[in-house]
Amino acid sequence: MKQADFVIPLNWKNDSFRQIKNPKTLANPASSFPFSFPVKPYQNPESFNLSKIIMPLGDNLGDKSDSRYCGVETDFNDDMPHVLSYNINGGFDFIVAPLMEPGYRPSLINTASRESSVLPFAGSDLVLSPAQWSSHVVGKISSWIDLDSEDDVLREDSETALKQELAWASHLSLQACLLPTPKGNSCANYARCVNQILQNLNNMQLWLRIPLVKSDDEDDDSVNGTSDGMVVEPTDSWELWNSFRELCEHHSQLSVALDVLSSLPSVNSLGRWFGEPVKAAIVHTDSFLTNARGYPCLSKRHQKLLSGFFYFSIQIVLSGKAVHKLPVGSLPSGSGQADNNAQQAQKHEIRSYLDYVGYLYQKMEPLPEQERFELGYRDFLQSPLQPLMDNLEAQTYETFEKDSVKYIQYQRAVSKALVDRIPDENASTTTVILMVVGAGRGPLVRASLQAAEETGRKLKVYAVEKNPNAVVTLHSLVKLEGWEDVVTIISCDMRCWEAPEKADILVSELLGSFGDNELSPECLDGAQRFLKPDGISIPSSYTSFIQPVTTSKLYNDVKLHKDLLHFETAYVVKLHRLAKLSPSQAVFTFTHPNYSPNISNQRYKKLRFETPVETGSFIVHGFAGYFDAILYKDVHLGIEPSTATPNMFSWFPIFFPLRSPVYVKAGSPLDFQIWRCCGNTKVWYEWCVTSPTVSPIHNCNGRSYWVGL
Amino acid sequence: MKQADFVIPLNWKNDSFRQIKNPKTLANPASSFPFSFPVKPYQNPESFNLSKIIMPLGDNLGDKSDSRYCGVETDFNDDMPHVLSYNINGGFDFIVAPLMEPGYRPSLINTASRESSVLPFAGSDLVLSPAQWSSHVVGKISSWIDLDSEDDVLREDSETALKQELAWASHLSLQACLLPTPKGNSCANYARCVNQILQNLNNMQLWLRIPLVKSDDEDDDSVNGTSDGMVVEPTDSWELWNSFRELCEHHSQLSVALDVLSSLPSVNSLGRWFGEPVKAAIVHTDSFLTNARGYPCLSKRHQKLLSGFFYFSIQIVLSGKAVHKLPVGSLPSGSGQADNNAQQAQKHEIRSYLDYVGYLYQKMEPLPEQERFELGYRDFLQSPLQPLMDNLEAQTYETFEKDSVKYIQYQRAVSKALVDRIPDENASTTTVILMVVGAGRGPLVRASLQAAEETGRKLKVYAVEKNPNAVVTLHSLVKLEGWEDVVTIISCDMRCWEAPEKADILVSELLGSFGDNELSPECLDGAQRFLKPDGISIPSSYTSFIQPVTTSKLYNDVKLHKDLLHFETAYVVKLHRLAKLSPSQAVFTFTHPNYSPNISNQRYKKLRFETPVETGSFIVHGFAGYFDAILYKDVHLGIEPSTATPNMFSWFPIFFPLRSPVYVKAGSPLDFQIWRCCGNTKVWYEWCVTSPTVSPIHNCNGRSYWVGL
Repeated sequence: MKQADFVIPLNWKNDSFRQIKNPKTLANPASSFPFSFPVKPYQNPESFNLSKIIMPLGDNLGDKSDSRYCGVETDFNDDMPHVLSYNINGGFDFIVAPLMEPGYRPSLINTASRESSVLPFAGSDLVLSPAQWSSHVVGKISSWIDLDSEDDVLREDSETALKQELAWASHLSLQACLLPTPKGNSCANYARCVNQILQNLNNMQLWLRIPLVKSDDEDDDSVNGTSDGMVVEPTDSWELWNSFRELCEHHSQLSVALDVLSSLPSVNSLGRWFGEPVKAAIVHTDSFLTNARGYPCLSKRHQKLLSGFFYFSIQIVLSGKAVHKLPVGSLPSGSGQADNNAQQAQKHEIRSYLDYVGYLYQKMEPLPEQERFELGYRDFLQSPLQPLMDNLEAQTYETFEKDSVKYIQYQRAVSKALVDRIPDENASTTTVILMVVGAGRGPLVRASLQAAEETGRKLKVYAVEKNPNAVVTLHSLVKLEGWEDVVTIISCDMRCWEAPEKADILVSELLGSFGDNELSPECLDGAQRFLKPDGISIPSSYTSFIQPVTTSKLYNDVKLHKDLLHFETAYVVKLHRLAKLSPSQAVFTFTHPNYSPNISNQRYKKLRFETPVETGSFIVHGFAGYFDAILYKDVHLGIEPSTATPNMFSWFPIFFPLRSPVYVKAGSPLDFQIWRCCGNTKVWYEWCVTSPTVSPIHNCNGRSYWVGL
Repeated sequence: MKQADFVIPLNWKNDSFRQIKNPKTLANPASSFPFSFPVKPYQNPESFNLSKIIMPLGDNLGDKSDSRYCGVETDFNDDMPHVLSYNINGGFDFIVAPLMEPGYRPSLINTASRESSVLPFAGSDLVLSPAQWSSHVVGKISSWIDLDSEDDVLREDSETALKQELAWASHLSLQACLLPTPKGNSCANYARCVNQILQNLNNMQLWLRIPLVKSDDEDDDSVNGTSDGMVVEPTDSWELWNSFRELCEHHSQLSVALDVLSSLPSVNSLGRWFGEPVKAAIVHTDSFLTNARGYPCLSKRHQKLLSGFFYFSIQIVLSGKAVHKLPVGSLPSGSGQADNNAQQAQKHEIRSYLDYVGYLYQKMEPLPEQERFELGYRDFLQSPLQPLMDNLEAQTYETFEKDSVKYIQYQRAVSKALVDRIPDENASTTTVILMVVGAGRGPLVRASLQAAEETGRKLKVYAVEKNPNAVVTLHSLVKLEGWEDVVTIISCDMRCWEAPEKADILVSELLGSFGDNELSPECLDGAQRFLKPDGISIPSSYTSFIQPVTTSKLYNDVKLHKDLLHFETAYVVKLHRLAKLSPSQAVFTFTHPNYSPNISNQRYKKLRFETPVETGSFIVHGFAGYFDAILYKDVHLGIEPSTATPNMFSWFPIFFPLRSPVYVKAGSPLDFQIWRCCGNTKVWYEWCVTSPTVSPIHNCNGRSYWVGL
């Protein structure tokens, strides 16, 4: 509900308009019915379902679709219906429009007449229905507002006006309002006032307008470039956003609208923003170049940036007058938009800029099918499986078994192992004893038998599985496939099975997103009893990896639960809207079989993450974890970004949150420490940050999150 | 997620079947993807949205649609695909089928062979996909199971088998399992075992099978009638359900399947069940009568009962063999179902019974449009408005204004008051001063002006409104309608406005679902300063009403929040799935104007609710509240069920929950007490039950729920 985004698609203009005129859009609970008013969404799930309906065209095709909608910044105009229809017909999906007459100052109204006074708002909820307001208008808060001014009258007027305009915006159920950029260095009073308003705001988002500037040189002129003509100190505008956000305690309804100017900061520093709650990018007409045919276009770096915005569903808003004189024959330039006959649709003044943005959008590569299938999982926190304690469900097995890439890798590994183990001349005479431990419904059994066929080796397979329900399926599978004389099914936990003979090859897939987090080490230590001294374990080893990330989305989702437990839990999550601040580093490695005299699976690792100075300062919300496994010799399988196995979908990364985000000053190192602890009944991780600031140790004694043995 | 119901519509058989064969049904997160597994739904709202997708045809048209799906109870059969297709093609939507071979007893399997043993389940997840299992099969737990038997072996076998069968059912992600009726008087060990399983069950519902019997006569033979041939003591089977449910702490996944037999208990006692979590009604073929043409039909009382089931979306399951010899010419009776040629669809053995149930379903009257519009609100808890503290949103006003019935009543009241006040001869000379306090966006102003026109009286209207945002709209409305010289808009709180003159008529609509709960009394006491001594207040009085209800749905929704606050809050809710146990009684009355020397709006009321003995014992989850208001003389308006104004939708009832449900023995009275308390800044209610048991006083000092002044 809080993340309400725009869903007025570029190409459904007419429908969306028809829909808005259609009273039925009001015939749904959340949008129009009074009583659902103060129910807290995360307390009452149903209100979430309802909230989806608020939007005029609710069929969001996944993250990307939001960025299919493009807005335009408009000047104050009393005739909202005209402004709206002009811009909608002109090709835009929503407008960012001032709500209040710019000349208005509260102090100029004498208290006597107040009783019968009306505030000079742009139109009322009679000229446009609430549904129209909320689906097509972002409120632009008066830019004269300066809550940190030395001038008392201006400061008090600013506070009154800000409250009046935001009250009016929520009265209209607008989905968002654009807050003017803080003026000058300090923004504490501005933040204090916004923070008060945030405490009992409806579902409206507040977009704080921040110019996208960062220069190491104090008097860089790119700084003075925004429409509001303000000046930013310090010269890294991210610092401005960060202090404002910190003052408002990372409130989930406070987000960013970036002013994209003609000159851009370094690529490194731009990356930071993708982990921040940036909802919109305001692109100014004067940051466009001119192409050979005289039309507006953008520099390569701007193009790259916009693709980034599209990918992260950040909506583009165009701002400013037409500055390109279009070649003759094309439609009227900035000057004329009245002189069209009624026949021909009125051409929007800056349509050529919108067309270029649309062209960039359509130029992007479509998502591969697997990615589309996983859209619903993006940044969705899920507790890791506990396959040892809990039995997986049939549907879960079914999904895993669909991951052909994974089983092809296993088949390749088994084939190589078989060939190494049995020279061709003995192929027909010797039978290899292969044990699949954790056989589930049989996919690894199948892969092993295919490897045997492929290499012409003879196989005897034991399929060991502790889940009695999976064993039922395994039996029907063996009958179905006629494997009865090759495969023996053992309904037992590998840790306590008394094997009748020893194995040449031990095949298992007990890996979690963080490698050892589903207790593969403990299980295989138990199973290697029945592996021959020279036997082979597939996998032969695996390593976990970790890296710091900025991800305000996940931080706020964890915070929603309002308890310690959720801040000390590692989540499986399809990471999307985040900034990776430093390359991932190896954490824990386990090798099998492990014949060291006294095996311990406890681990401890200190890591130092460096980030180039030009990235600037950034905030760390937590750490993203991955794994890579060596199945056999050169056959590996994993999700560590730089070496990930393509098109494999069985694992999403893991996310270790931090109870409070850590601010890292430009160029200073980040020290992270993590432990793998083992008890009699459970295994858990503890983690902390020790520099630049020291965090508490998270999940002490596995009080919040652990994996059962 | 916990209330997951069947959504396989009667008339979409083929689609639903095609859909199941279509892998895409698995291409959605919640149904097939591993990682979403242990996320707690009420902790993570998103998982709720996903959960909806679990169902093969998710477009639930509201409560009623569930009962459009009819099931059939089947015998054990190893060939599930055949059983399923025979019954689906035979016209049923789902089957209630045994999962385990009936002869199986755990104690008969020797431990030695256990390692390689398979449990004798009916088919695996290979013969039917998990999606097919979960969308078309309710698991029937072995009826030989008796957890309270004196025979140790039987008792231990029962526990083992129950756990194995339910584990298998969750492995298949079934939406529900049918638990056999407790045997004999005691069910403590059965409940203990089920309660343990409920603690970490996935979203599966457990339907406890309870015969619908109640007799005051010990040896009533209707008791021995169910398919499982068990005997029930005490003879009111509701008591059996109640003790089982109490032992399991009202767990929200524990529900009821009622066995409907040939003879039915009294109508009064039947009513109790509609407040209980009854998910299914199993109707036995031998409880059908025979109509003139030799076809099966049901007695009038059975028909009435089934309409009740339909209305409360309780699904019908047919059980038993065909006992009607259908007239010649019609299709084969019980005996022959093999002898059909491939051409003609195989006629289901008990199709004629299903056809009759379908006939009853179609015979029901369709819901009126307003009811359909409100389907989404049924039993959905919402916090009451705080119009005094918070400003309503435009959309809220808009919805209220749609309630024409309400404004017609106001117009009638004002007309009568005008005529009483001004005799026809003075109509043209005298101008009546009318003040609308809480004018909002103007609907009462409009109603008053229409009353003046209708009666030919001259009016001067003051529209007093404290919400500055509504005042903006009010101004545009007055301009739009050209009311400038009749209507004066006052942007001020009525409690502090200094009126320039006094009013003849004071019109207000400040009523909440419980009458005074939106502080109408406090507001009007403040406003009557500017009413002439002989002036008229519309409304002239209002009274709240209350009655005890059984509503396990609402109780469990409140319990979800796991805190005291939600158990001490009054909710606005469109009551649907509940049993009203006793007629409502008047609680608090307020009259305006109120010239008593020292006005107090504190109130205190003791109420005793009686219920006829034949109703039997019942459980009270809370109290439903209503109001009725006298606008002027005989013109009233309200929602008290026996006198409710037809087609008015501005108010839903209010619900006062109890922290722990109260068990009321047949015929014993229920004593309830409620206070209206007033502080300097807030008003609140406190309430308690004092007989048959004593509850704590709820909401002491308004610690959990209050209305701000």
